[in-house]
Amino acid sequence: MSDKQKKAVVLLSGGLDSATVLAIAKVQGYACHALSFDYGQRHSAELAASRRVADAMSVAEHKILRLDLGSIGGSALTDMAIAVPEAQAEGIPATYVPARNTVFLSLALGWAEVLAARDIFIGVNAVDYSGYPDCRPEFVQAFEKLANLATKAGVEGECFRIQAPLIEMSKAEIIRTGTKLGVDYALTVSCYQADDQGCACGTCDSCRLRAQGFQEAGVADPTCYQDTQKV
Amino acid sequence: MSDKQKKAVVLLSGGLDSATVLAIAKVQGYACHALSFDYGQRHSAELAASRRVADAMSVAEHKILRLDLGSIGGSALTDMAIAVPEAQAEGIPATYVPARNTVFLSLALGWAEVLAARDIFIGVNAVDYSGYPDCRPEFVQAFEKLANLATKAGVEGECFRIQAPLIEMSKAEIIRTGTKLGVDYALTVSCYQADDQGCACGTCDSCRLRAQGFQEAGVADPTCYQDTQKV
Repeated sequence: MSDKQKKAVVLLSGGLDSATVLAIAKVQGYACHALSFDYGQRHSAELAASRRVADAMSVAEHKILRLDLGSIGGSALTDMAIAVPEAQAEGIPATYVPARNTVFLSLALGWAEVLAARDIFIGVNAVDYSGYPDCRPEFVQAFEKLANLATKAGVEGECFRIQAPLIEMSKAEIIRTGTKLGVDYALTVSCYQADDQGCACGTCDSCRLRAQGFQEAGVADPTCYQDTQKV
Repeated sequence: MSDKQKKAVVLLSGGLDSATVLAIAKVQGYACHALSFDYGQRHSAELAASRRVADAMSVAEHKILRLDLGSIGGSALTDMAIAVPEAQAEGIPATYVPARNTVFLSLALGWAEVLAARDIFIGVNAVDYSGYPDCRPEFVQAFEKLANLATKAGVEGECFRIQAPLIEMSKAEIIRTGTKLGVDYALTVSCYQADDQGCACGTCDSCRLRAQGFQEAGVADPTCYQDTQKV
């Protein structure tokens, strides 16, 4: 990596979307500093997947920050007392984690400023977004504006860019894009309640969107399911 | 506390400003949920002060979230390799913690949403603000806008308010306001490098601003200094 290579912070969850974003940032020539969060999610399979993906894609650095969102609660993803929904409901689902992307982007911003990186990549997606408010283009734009008011770099005129290259893509387009860029989706985990081996339940919203995406993309689904009865 | 009492999340550092903000929120009738961060700051005196203040002011709840900003680095306050400046320099000082208030407000927002609180109080101040970009009114406004795009509550039309009642006050006005409201400033710690007993160095920017504030307010300075040679 040359000293002059431009740097980016890439939010990496270990899921399909963020693995694709990392591949996009790499092909654009960025030295990628991947950032994952140990935030009290239900299972550790996601973090294990983020390590596999970061390793396979030769990132410049992979940082996992501990962050106790579980103590705030309020989501099926961080509070074991709230059930993960099995069918798509109307409105914003119980898997919504209050202010999650705001928190993740804020920490990415802090790290980006320290690294002198000006680009932050996030795999949010407004099409198959499960209804999360912090996956919409207007949220991303508002965060970018905030970033440039909040920081020393922003005040000094070096603008941050929040890059959300998947924001208008369908799940199928994301999978086709990543497949072209050589992403190994077998390394990723999307399921909200994966087991320790990273095998998926096949029934939660995230599993349904993923399976449908592979089907529509015409790409073989490499997902490991917890039983043979695949959705 | 009645069930109908309106709730607020109040960011509480243990310093003079946030103790005053807590008193303001209380006198406005809010049930106050105080939020502090164990973020890798140089000393634990600040957190001990936040506990004393929360206790003295009978908050509804005091949560201390662990957050490893030290692993991101980039500030004299979280990185022991960077010295705390002793004299006010031009521009943004080495004590600036990249994106700190953005991170703190994001987590306050998440907690507020879970609590069904719509008000978040923060003790930022644009007058004696040491040049931090994330203490300016335009930052607070941009965060409020983001909060209402980022959250389920915001999307459903229940607006969040980011309340920064000190933003246009001088340090002396803050001290006079808090004194009227019965804040015991002896419980608070402002120093960037306080010792374990919470006694102040007397030489850092934060100590200088505090001492000057008490002097201008005509209020006796209850600060405990590390040696008798008070600034």
